[in-house]
Amino acid sequence: MDGNIMKRDTVAMDEAAGELVIIDQTRLPGETVLLRLSKAEEIYDAIYHLRVRGAPAIGVAAAIGLWAVCLRLPDGDREGFVTELRRVKTYLAGARPTAVNLAWALDRMERVALDHSESTVPELKTLLKEEARAIRDEDIQVCRRIGEYGLTLIGDGWGILTHCNAGQLATTRYGTALAPIHLGRERGMNFRVFTDETRPLLQGARLSACELAADGVDTTLICDNMASSVMKRGWVQAVFVGCDRVAANGDTANKIGTSGVAILAKHYGIPFYVCAPTSTIDMACPDGGAIQIEERPGREVTEMWYERPMAPEGVKVYNPAFDVTEADLVTAFVTEYGVLRPPFGPAFRKLFAEKDGKEG
Amino acid sequence: MDGNIMKRDTVAMDEAAGELVIIDQTRLPGETVLLRLSKAEEIYDAIYHLRVRGAPAIGVAAAIGLWAVCLRLPDGDREGFVTELRRVKTYLAGARPTAVNLAWALDRMERVALDHSESTVPELKTLLKEEARAIRDEDIQVCRRIGEYGLTLIGDGWGILTHCNAGQLATTRYGTALAPIHLGRERGMNFRVFTDETRPLLQGARLSACELAADGVDTTLICDNMASSVMKRGWVQAVFVGCDRVAANGDTANKIGTSGVAILAKHYGIPFYVCAPTSTIDMACPDGGAIQIEERPGREVTEMWYERPMAPEGVKVYNPAFDVTEADLVTAFVTEYGVLRPPFGPAFRKLFAEKDGKEG
Repeated sequence: MDGNIMKRDTVAMDEAAGELVIIDQTRLPGETVLLRLSKAEEIYDAIYHLRVRGAPAIGVAAAIGLWAVCLRLPDGDREGFVTELRRVKTYLAGARPTAVNLAWALDRMERVALDHSESTVPELKTLLKEEARAIRDEDIQVCRRIGEYGLTLIGDGWGILTHCNAGQLATTRYGTALAPIHLGRERGMNFRVFTDETRPLLQGARLSACELAADGVDTTLICDNMASSVMKRGWVQAVFVGCDRVAANGDTANKIGTSGVAILAKHYGIPFYVCAPTSTIDMACPDGGAIQIEERPGREVTEMWYERPMAPEGVKVYNPAFDVTEADLVTAFVTEYGVLRPPFGPAFRKLFAEKDGKEG
Repeated sequence: MDGNIMKRDTVAMDEAAGELVIIDQTRLPGETVLLRLSKAEEIYDAIYHLRVRGAPAIGVAAAIGLWAVCLRLPDGDREGFVTELRRVKTYLAGARPTAVNLAWALDRMERVALDHSESTVPELKTLLKEEARAIRDEDIQVCRRIGEYGLTLIGDGWGILTHCNAGQLATTRYGTALAPIHLGRERGMNFRVFTDETRPLLQGARLSACELAADGVDTTLICDNMASSVMKRGWVQAVFVGCDRVAANGDTANKIGTSGVAILAKHYGIPFYVCAPTSTIDMACPDGGAIQIEERPGREVTEMWYERPMAPEGVKVYNPAFDVTEADLVTAFVTEYGVLRPPFGPAFRKLFAEKDGKEG
């Protein structure tokens, strides 16, 4: 493990070179490999193959990536530029369907072009750079504020269970679910964190355990199926997870296994918190039934990471990448605007009304 | 995968050679390797390293193994023979602490020697052979009867979820949790079975998927953390699991993750059945709190099966091999004497009273 991973942003923008710079997360733990990307196919591939993952991080990466691709388009033809921008935008948005941030960030980038119909291509390139930078800077701010609000929910010495990686490696900096832990550490607090390994892609083992250990957090890795035992022993005072898309009623799509953890937490009477930048709340989506769940290849379960196939040849595999946790299993959402309690529908509507009021 | 694994017993007794013969389950799927064992250290090692596993199978293997070891002791010294038998018995019983069948089968073997204080060593060797053979034959009968009773609980076309491997590969033949499936198949019934891969040792992926596919069952492999999604989709009409030790109140120790599956089943209103030979019911154990839970090395989680370590070096790992499912999460126990409904304490007492009455 490389302690330095805590010292650099997960997703970065090289303004001089015009490149998206990411840590290749498929190589963690063990190797910290930086990738410098500027071609649409490379960026799609990096998102599809989870070299960059985590809803906030893929939003930021897609925005920076779209800027990097557009930067290389010819300056003369505005119409061709916008057509190509929109083509690449649609292409990148298809890399992963569940997380709303990807589409949300790409929409913001597209709107820059649509909103500045009088601008020249060089002007648009500058505007896109500024928008990508803004998306990144807002991500950092949002995560820090989620960390602050999350810290109000936990105490020094608490046991926290998390699933997948909604940490620094899922955002530009700090993380969402792990932001309270990292911020608490800065202030000298101690926590005992249990991280589900999170099959099949092992984000908990490879990424959360990695960044938590690098931050000096007392970290215990468990298999996903051990969460019930750990809760039963009284070692867990709160569960913190991230999210990929939250419906208007509070139903929450997050990494496969999250709904099971939420059901266990309810059974054992442990609060279950979802850390959600408002960019992941999709008010156009009425409930969890409307969220498209990405299914990935079976070989991620039977072969990936292994020395030899671990299941009989040809066995059927069901490999959904996400599941939906029903709103009534969520104790509260932690957003950059504060902690929202049920009923979530009205709480979300009030939040967006106030937010739009301020911005409008 | 070798379709032949369904055609041979998981644990066998070579009476001519005086050897225990097992399929090395750590080599499945992919290779069907037979091991012929007659030394105490080899047998301990085979049980400890899960070359033979599953509570019923390790009971039968230990009984046959103890006979094979004793067969090689000198004929002249009866006292020395019994002392060595008891030493080896205690040694083998320590290989795995949670399953009661191991101690139960070894106790039966020891009792043969203690109950025949007038017998010569050659006579004892014959009596031990007969007792080991009886333990094996009873295991086959018991599993078949569990299959019959289990079949009364399910219908043609049902979706069944199982965890770990309580199949043929966990017993001599048929299995416990999977006995209804295998018997149903013999009678032309079809089921759709979801098998949790069962981290960290992957008994579901390597063993259950293997034996179910070999039996022509429509089998879908999932990661442990996908059980909630599969249940939510309505694909599961019943859960069947095995057990390693059942306390007198119905609390059930079984493979790590079982308690989580039971909590999910309760949440989704799906019946949760534990298939339990009466040899796994430990009336001397009042409740789950009294069951010793084996903890195994962390490298089973971070390194085993993998091409490279999948967690940062030195990370703490909690790796309990079993958990306890509370009695109130169990819909019914399926034993060789019938289906037992709650309250389980009285049901177990009645069962054992009737059984002892018949045998006495």
